Amino acid sequence: MDRIPILKMGPHLLVTIQVDMHDRLALTLQDDLTAKIAEVGAKGVLIDISALEIVDSFIGRMLANIANMSRVLDAQTVVVGMQPAVAITLVELGMSLTGVRTALNVEKGMKLLSAAIDDTGSGPADVAAGEHASLAE
Amino acid sequence: MDRIPILKMGPHLLVTIQVDMHDRLALTLQDDLTAKIAEVGAKGVLIDISALEIVDSFIGRMLANIANMSRVLDAQTVVVGMQPAVAITLVELGMSLTGVRTALNVEKGMKLLSAAIDDTGSGPADVAAGEHASLAE
Repeated sequence: MDRIPILKMGPHLLVTIQVDMHDRLALTLQDDLTAKIAEVGAKGVLIDISALEIVDSFIGRMLANIANMSRVLDAQTVVVGMQPAVAITLVELGMSLTGVRTALNVEKGMKLLSAAIDDTGSGPADVAAGEHASLAE
Repeated sequence: MDRIPILKMGPHLLVTIQVDMHDRLALTLQDDLTAKIAEVGAKGVLIDISALEIVDSFIGRMLANIANMSRVLDAQTVVVGMQPAVAITLVELGMSLTGVRTALNVEKGMKLLSAAIDDTGSGPADVAAGEHASLAE
């Protein structure tokens, strides 16, 4: 198992984290995800962590990093499915995941992403996307 | 890692298999998935195996089992993201996955599921769903 699959669902990308992350896997995920965002012009990234029962500061930092990278590439990130115990641990570790949106499950995350994309005016229309691309230049 | 997350996406369920399956994990997945189909009344199950680079007859049987169980519960199963080498291996193992639909990626799988659901007349309408439920009795 050397990479985490990234699934394209309409304008969004879905990543389900099921395995223990180590340095190399996290780097591979960052590379793959940023490449995929650029390739398909994704507007949103959903990261499902419902399978994670234990998190450490490494995972917390990785999530924050991915959110920041996606933002630079003009995509919003939503972390979904966080277990209550994980939320407790993250806050106890002093990581409040600033800048990372969260939602209870994938469906709510999708709605949040769609609403966020509508807000910024970068809807599915080509004109709006082109406008955004020129802003990013 | 003791269970594989099952994500609800509209009327469908999405399962991404990323880890090596062993007996207990496969049984847990079957239990969880059938329970979830019954709980949310899912009409379709998408199983993404794009992360699997190696399959054996155990995985092949598990996929066929899940498809059969889902069918009994009135849900269609589509296996998506199979790598070419995996397809070769499965056929060489003599497992042609009879009764399992496949699609190249999640988006195509979703379309296939939606089309299949429309065909059987068990669309999102309550009337049609009720009709199906009575047929299943």
